[in-house]
Amino acid sequence: MIREIRQPGTHSFVFSPYPEPIASVRPGETVAVYTIDAFGDLITSETDIPSKILGNHLNPQTGPIFIEGAEPGDTLAVHILDIEPTRDWAVSAHLPNFGGLTSTGLTRTLNEPLPEKVFMYRLEDKFAIHNERLKFPWRPFLGTIGTAPEIEAISALAPGNHGGNMDVPDTKPGNTVYLPVCVEGGYFFTGDCHAGQGDGELCGVALEIAAKVTLKFDLIKGASIAWPRIESPTELMVVGSARPMEDAARIAYAELIEWMMELGWDKWEAYQALTQIGKLYVGNMVDTNYSLVAKIDKAYAMLSS
Amino acid sequence: MIREIRQPGTHSFVFSPYPEPIASVRPGETVAVYTIDAFGDLITSETDIPSKILGNHLNPQTGPIFIEGAEPGDTLAVHILDIEPTRDWAVSAHLPNFGGLTSTGLTRTLNEPLPEKVFMYRLEDKFAIHNERLKFPWRPFLGTIGTAPEIEAISALAPGNHGGNMDVPDTKPGNTVYLPVCVEGGYFFTGDCHAGQGDGELCGVALEIAAKVTLKFDLIKGASIAWPRIESPTELMVVGSARPMEDAARIAYAELIEWMMELGWDKWEAYQALTQIGKLYVGNMVDTNYSLVAKIDKAYAMLSS
Amino acid sequence: MIREIRQPGTHSFVFSPYPEPIASVRPGETVAVYTIDAFGDLITSETDIPSKILGNHLNPQTGPIFIEGAEPGDTLAVHILDIEPTRDWAVSAHLPNFGGLTSTGLTRTLNEPLPEKVFMYRLEDKFAIHNERLKFPWRPFLGTIGTAPEIEAISALAPGNHGGNMDVPDTKPGNTVYLPVCVEGGYFFTGDCHAGQGDGELCGVALEIAAKVTLKFDLIKGASIAWPRIESPTELMVVGSARPMEDAARIAYAELIEWMMELGWDKWEAYQALTQIGKLYVGNMVDTNYSLVAKIDKAYAMLSS
Amino acid sequence: MIREIRQPGTHSFVFSPYPEPIASVRPGETVAVYTIDAFGDLITSETDIPSKILGNHLNPQTGPIFIEGAEPGDTLAVHILDIEPTRDWAVSAHLPNFGGLTSTGLTRTLNEPLPEKVFMYRLEDKFAIHNERLKFPWRPFLGTIGTAPEIEAISALAPGNHGGNMDVPDTKPGNTVYLPVCVEGGYFFTGDCHAGQGDGELCGVALEIAAKVTLKFDLIKGASIAWPRIESPTELMVVGSARPMEDAARIAYAELIEWMMELGWDKWEAYQALTQIGKLYVGNMVDTNYSLVAKIDKAYAMLSS
Repeated sequence: MIREIRQPGTHSFVFSPYPEPIASVRPGETVAVYTIDAFGDLITSETDIPSKILGNHLNPQTGPIFIEGAEPGDTLAVHILDIEPTRDWAVSAHLPNFGGLTSTGLTRTLNEPLPEKVFMYRLEDKFAIHNERLKFPWRPFLGTIGTAPEIEAISALAPGNHGGNMDVPDTKPGNTVYLPVCVEGGYFFTGDCHAGQGDGELCGVALEIAAKVTLKFDLIKGASIAWPRIESPTELMVVGSARPMEDAARIAYAELIEWMMELGWDKWEAYQALTQIGKLYVGNMVDTNYSLVAKIDKAYAMLSS
Repeated sequence: MIREIRQPGTHSFVFSPYPEPIASVRPGETVAVYTIDAFGDLITSETDIPSKILGNHLNPQTGPIFIEGAEPGDTLAVHILDIEPTRDWAVSAHLPNFGGLTSTGLTRTLNEPLPEKVFMYRLEDKFAIHNERLKFPWRPFLGTIGTAPEIEAISALAPGNHGGNMDVPDTKPGNTVYLPVCVEGGYFFTGDCHAGQGDGELCGVALEIAAKVTLKFDLIKGASIAWPRIESPTELMVVGSARPMEDAARIAYAELIEWMMELGWDKWEAYQALTQIGKLYVGNMVDTNYSLVAKIDKAYAMLSS
Repeated sequence: MIREIRQPGTHSFVFSPYPEPIASVRPGETVAVYTIDAFGDLITSETDIPSKILGNHLNPQTGPIFIEGAEPGDTLAVHILDIEPTRDWAVSAHLPNFGGLTSTGLTRTLNEPLPEKVFMYRLEDKFAIHNERLKFPWRPFLGTIGTAPEIEAISALAPGNHGGNMDVPDTKPGNTVYLPVCVEGGYFFTGDCHAGQGDGELCGVALEIAAKVTLKFDLIKGASIAWPRIESPTELMVVGSARPMEDAARIAYAELIEWMMELGWDKWEAYQALTQIGKLYVGNMVDTNYSLVAKIDKAYAMLSS
Repeated sequence: MIREIRQPGTHSFVFSPYPEPIASVRPGETVAVYTIDAFGDLITSETDIPSKILGNHLNPQTGPIFIEGAEPGDTLAVHILDIEPTRDWAVSAHLPNFGGLTSTGLTRTLNEPLPEKVFMYRLEDKFAIHNERLKFPWRPFLGTIGTAPEIEAISALAPGNHGGNMDVPDTKPGNTVYLPVCVEGGYFFTGDCHAGQGDGELCGVALEIAAKVTLKFDLIKGASIAWPRIESPTELMVVGSARPMEDAARIAYAELIEWMMELGWDKWEAYQALTQIGKLYVGNMVDTNYSLVAKIDKAYAMLSS
């Protein structure tokens, strides 16, 4: 006699979501969020060997944070007010089989891995300094910022339409990040602060810092967005995350057209305008999805009525 | 005074995994698992409009099923003994913005969506029959079969190194599917049975059926695999799932070399052998990751000692 | 005084095409074409070091062959009657920075190249034999077969809509290859014969042979095709060549729908049929474009009227 | 008796290269090159229907120009001194099945094409003006600039390691473009001038102009480069062209590391530096290859000795 297994009812997903929020925040409230670095603060010396120290639990986030009143279909506006380091150093590293110019777990080859190496940087006078050649200005931003996806509970390493590990330098102080609210309370999280990063985050590890992040939340009720948007004082931006990279590019520009249409643009004129004046850079070329940022200057995007 | 939010300790992931298992199974035990179709059995007529009926909770699975004694680092062997339909019809459909030859949510364009259309098939005399042109033999397999990923709780629509929604026709009766055990108990799930499917699952929807699936589980203790493997009476196979498609191809062949090395092959001779005699077909070109199957005939793979 | 450079008239391309044909062939005529191997017959021993011997002039072809009466808009049917080896050995090799599981000139990484190695095979009793593990049956086909593209004169290493270096095992004796005629005379060429090859041509080098190829040409006047087609006694096939691999897959299936529509199929029923019964395998995953073959069994494709 | 076709000798490529040069230029000489627009100056009104007017001979170039003394292995430095329009208008267009947000000949879908539309712009007061919304500043550059590839004679629509149709806005006055010399005389060509273009050239057609281009050539003897480089007063750049887009990104950054190593950098420090301070934008996402530009500020790249 074979035992029979039936689902008790019809439920659509194997996996349940989300842990308990660590805090609840009101729209309009300003909070300081403390984040640890993408290595869980575990790499502290150039003699450390990351592949021996780190397990699979990378890129720890602070959250989820419950946003009061947030309901599916709303948009969460996150004003990034400030990022301050909570220690006087940053760390980067070349890791085996991770990065933009190496065989990886997803782009598999039979080549031997690259040499592993930790780079320590001291934070001093608004610079991150490893030596006289590797000395870069303080340009902090949030590598990871997102809300909970509707039905998945994906790794903090993944960027997607919920935001997440986008690694785009425009999630920085002075800018506002708009994120979709897919579950009640939004379940905001952030972490992975960088003292600075080049486009693409080439080796896969930026200038990783622990930080105090000052944020103010607003809720736009009843206005849904499909992909993360960023507004700076002068630009409108959309972040697309996908593989291959051209799919991320298509998403970013297609959603920027959506945004422009909300501002009154004709679809085909928006397409034409972005052809002539849009900007498109690579945020990351190393994560589980690549993230590209499409942007337009407000001087062009904002129609006079 | 700004409120400060700190994580109570260092925890690495925002999101918690997995619901309670619906059953617990011993290795060696044969069970019958009942699955509903990928539409949750909601599309029953050619006048149905899927985009109005279906929400985001697609591809419901039966599970998780707890495998007694399964621990991370083990491999779960799933012998597929039989698949029987539990109704006398199958359904397929062309959905807007989903499929292999259309603009989609990930490959975004400004084109208008394709026309939506439901195709009902009756199951009769070992055929699925829509009309005299669309009449296909009964070649059932499990579209989705997997274990829980280590740290994520991803959608039942996603294939990956845990298996999942691979849509490869070789997960069929007579074959054994090997899956990695990443969490205690493995948390096996399956669903999305197909009465048949072409390579690629071109429009995104195969011949979707509800089914009774007879499975027998074995546990290979202390033997870990990185990606799903399939063994037929005559072939060894690995399924790679990634985007772009060449990354899935690389994974499938690279892991097949790993398997051959476990069987005694020299790495470079295995690479050479697969160059001359390997097979590589497209399982799906429509899901969140594309799944490709690399295979070698046992007549070549099994070294005489 | 600055010298001014103006084009003497308006001509659209910098580059002129094609050398003089080496032969002129009538439709209906059967010819024997002698081809040398993809290394120009230069690698003859396992102590040879290909990277020192080979320059950039790889994959030499025999041609162009002028097809009498062929005009742009026609289709050239090439019946592959026979392939005989003209020597008793085949050669394969692992080359640095070339192949499917290595960093390459197009998929650039910083990893060290794989070890270089030549594999000699003797052709004996319908097998290619390197040693007891690397012993494969005689399954000869034309790695490269094509016509001149309309406006380009591209390398013999490139596959495309003109055919070329597709490396798909179905260009074999018993099958007919249909190629577009883009210039007067078609300018047919072939070469790169393989004693056998796995799907994907994984390391980039199959069982390379010099051969005598017996072909018969037919001309289908006024019937144009956009991509190469192959007809076997039992199947209809289209070869798509592009990067990333999913673009090649899309081309192959989209053009197979075109072919089915020419046979009387409704577009959407053809899409549905290929979803349920189509086949899709990887011909090469190593050339400048990847080549995928979509196919349907004639038993399904041929509508009874 | 079957006729036999043998190649008279062993020659490696079917196709011969290049037409006669239209001019010969000495290194150090400044010349004015006149270019027509990418449509061959054939679209002159918003009532024109490009798909009916244009054939396959798109993107006409001026050239080839023979550079005296240029030999394979040299590098050609092209100083872009000035670009002046030779008429008072520019043209853009949305073409069917061409562009970044549409089904195309390479990314095939079954969707209906986008509407075709011509946009005329008048050039006035350093602006290109279609209407009050579509009004963009004069930012001219050379869409296409290249030398002859070593063995191919590819379409003027293709970008590659020889340069060509890269559509990157940094090939502009004030900058120097370095191109590989692959054949004697280099066979320089240019065309496809744009009055301006956004990153990606989203719809596939920028602000197309006819122009007088003032260039000065220099020859760097015995110094070979693998991919095009650009030097501005403040930045070093490399253009990678490939599909998928991540391959173009890898090429651009890998070659920028090569350049930095020529300047004295350690390979791994260069990798680390570009991770933290590199820039990477999309030049085109519409051509036969995508072109990405990786760059580093000279303030970081130039090591003090």
